[in-house]
Amino acid sequence: MNSALCRDLGIEFPLFAFSHCRDVVAAVSRAGGMGVFGAVMYTPEQLRTELEWIDANCGGKPYGVDLIVPTSIQRQGSSLSDDQLLAGLPDEHLAFVEATLAQAGVGSDDLDERRRAMLHFSHNLDSGGAEEMLDVAFSFPIRLIANALGTPPQIMLDRARIAGVPVAALVGSKKHAERQVAAGVDILVAAGGEAGGHCGEISTMVLVPEVVSVAGGTPVLAAGGIVTGRQMAAAMAMGAAGAWCGSVWLTTAEGEPSQVVKDKMLAATSSDTVRSRSRTGKTSRQLKSAWTEAWEAQGPSPLPMPFQSLISEPALARIEKLAQGGHQGAAELATYWVGQGVGLMNQMTSTAEVVQEFKRDYLEAAERLMATLED
Amino acid sequence: MNSALCRDLGIEFPLFAFSHCRDVVAAVSRAGGMGVFGAVMYTPEQLRTELEWIDANCGGKPYGVDLIVPTSIQRQGSSLSDDQLLAGLPDEHLAFVEATLAQAGVGSDDLDERRRAMLHFSHNLDSGGAEEMLDVAFSFPIRLIANALGTPPQIMLDRARIAGVPVAALVGSKKHAERQVAAGVDILVAAGGEAGGHCGEISTMVLVPEVVSVAGGTPVLAAGGIVTGRQMAAAMAMGAAGAWCGSVWLTTAEGEPSQVVKDKMLAATSSDTVRSRSRTGKTSRQLKSAWTEAWEAQGPSPLPMPFQSLISEPALARIEKLAQGGHQGAAELATYWVGQGVGLMNQMTSTAEVVQEFKRDYLEAAERLMATLED
Repeated sequence: MNSALCRDLGIEFPLFAFSHCRDVVAAVSRAGGMGVFGAVMYTPEQLRTELEWIDANCGGKPYGVDLIVPTSIQRQGSSLSDDQLLAGLPDEHLAFVEATLAQAGVGSDDLDERRRAMLHFSHNLDSGGAEEMLDVAFSFPIRLIANALGTPPQIMLDRARIAGVPVAALVGSKKHAERQVAAGVDILVAAGGEAGGHCGEISTMVLVPEVVSVAGGTPVLAAGGIVTGRQMAAAMAMGAAGAWCGSVWLTTAEGEPSQVVKDKMLAATSSDTVRSRSRTGKTSRQLKSAWTEAWEAQGPSPLPMPFQSLISEPALARIEKLAQGGHQGAAELATYWVGQGVGLMNQMTSTAEVVQEFKRDYLEAAERLMATLED
Repeated sequence: MNSALCRDLGIEFPLFAFSHCRDVVAAVSRAGGMGVFGAVMYTPEQLRTELEWIDANCGGKPYGVDLIVPTSIQRQGSSLSDDQLLAGLPDEHLAFVEATLAQAGVGSDDLDERRRAMLHFSHNLDSGGAEEMLDVAFSFPIRLIANALGTPPQIMLDRARIAGVPVAALVGSKKHAERQVAAGVDILVAAGGEAGGHCGEISTMVLVPEVVSVAGGTPVLAAGGIVTGRQMAAAMAMGAAGAWCGSVWLTTAEGEPSQVVKDKMLAATSSDTVRSRSRTGKTSRQLKSAWTEAWEAQGPSPLPMPFQSLISEPALARIEKLAQGGHQGAAELATYWVGQGVGLMNQMTSTAEVVQEFKRDYLEAAERLMATLED
């Protein structure tokens, strides 16, 4: 594609794949897009292992890493020991999770253990932990580093500058975008309210032109609801330099959810998602399930990040495991982050095929628009 | 433009302007788009007067009419006399409105009178009233008739068929679209959750391709957040046959809001709207103001349509009048329906200039997309 961003990053097609799954990341990069590995749930050692695999399997093509290093969260977690973190979880929340699992016959005997195993998540969000993650990321020839929440801290910007790696940051409003441009971010990801995972309220159709209008020369990637090439073309007609997609990879053969969740997503309409603070403490869009419904109907008020994740993730990991094993109650509870674009994800396919289909569909959309201008 | 829909309707550019203001309707039609007059708040006599004016001022170009004739509402209003309707309004709601006005120093002495003056609104929603409105509409050479909520009743479809007038209907989900296509609607208006006025939750970026996928040969107009030609181009790249816009006309010289509300809209960001049932009883998107905040914070539960309108509209009409006269408390309360696109409406202009700017911006967007395909 004729695109300054593609030339700068050494990619063929400006489709960015955010994924927690290394197979997706490598497959998208091999197919001409750019895979971006969502690393926040991993330990530094795990991140090293995953990036080694990606580096060996991406065919020498560019790939990136996505972290969460927001300033406000650094302050919260950094002074607490593991035991303090765990002791600070309210009984009300723990009891609600146990009751919700019990009602579905899922049980909760390994939750403590699972909770301890994911303490590194909150560690990743404090400044020491974030630096360890940056050490690992920059020890690989990454071509992009992204910050998923808030303005990247100066250390991230400085290290990226030294390494010659562009920094991307997600924004949910024009005001965020102005702040990020002022901070020196290289690529803005304008994430509309229809996006899976953390999201604001401004829709992609409005947010993209708004962010482009204040971006100056900074390239803008459109995110939120985009699961087809025609939507990518739409975003680029509005001035975006590419698309940043997370949801569409979830129903590929490589995608990380269990087959149970994949099947739910393939059957879901665009009305089957919900924005809720019940997973991470910040508003994130998820597939509706018995779990999200229980939280919406009668759950306690979600805790701030990272505490709410220590409440929800261990339970959801257990649910996912049991659902995979055929447990009916667990299958009803099972959920995952996904955007409204899930309504357009109706067929299981491979990651490489998604990229090829994006290219075909993008071309058709551009031709459709051109045809309206013919005499 | 090379477009089957333009040829069928006899227009030059598939930009549809929904407006309660006859000046906007006529100006858009004259400029090559199609003005569609939102008639639901008018009496049949007023509708006749307005359409006579439009017919005399549209330069012989096609124009349309938009009504609300949903089946579920017909049942609710039709058996009640005016006095029964008024007597059915709960004291709690009336008292809340009075208190909210009093707090802003607005007073409420003419609300009863204003309420009686708008009883025709609920009459328009019952079957007898709707037929009177259809009588008036079809006595003019309209080129489009639209139903704003739900599937058009058979009588509307039949009369349109006889008159050779295409019927458009607004849809907020794929399921609605399937139902409307089955009912025989000629044009679908896919209205995303970012739209002003009545709206669902699915964003335009997702809803348009979803609706197109089930529309078969039925043309789809994209609505929701669209206030620029680049967004119209985006929607058409996704397969829409045109754009249906309501908000963008509000800040034109011709637009119906007071200058106070226009100034608020020009200053607003895309975050300054709220989805609320407090205006009509159904969820509609409005400009945030002291009025919407009062309802969200402590208002009683909104009544079903048309009762909630009998609560809110008389007060809002009084607010608008006092705001126009420079009353500070009224200015803070003043609000109107508007979509998230309000964040991109930053300059007062004329209706004709908006249409011309749409055309220029559409062309630029199409060229931008084409340029990505060059070697």
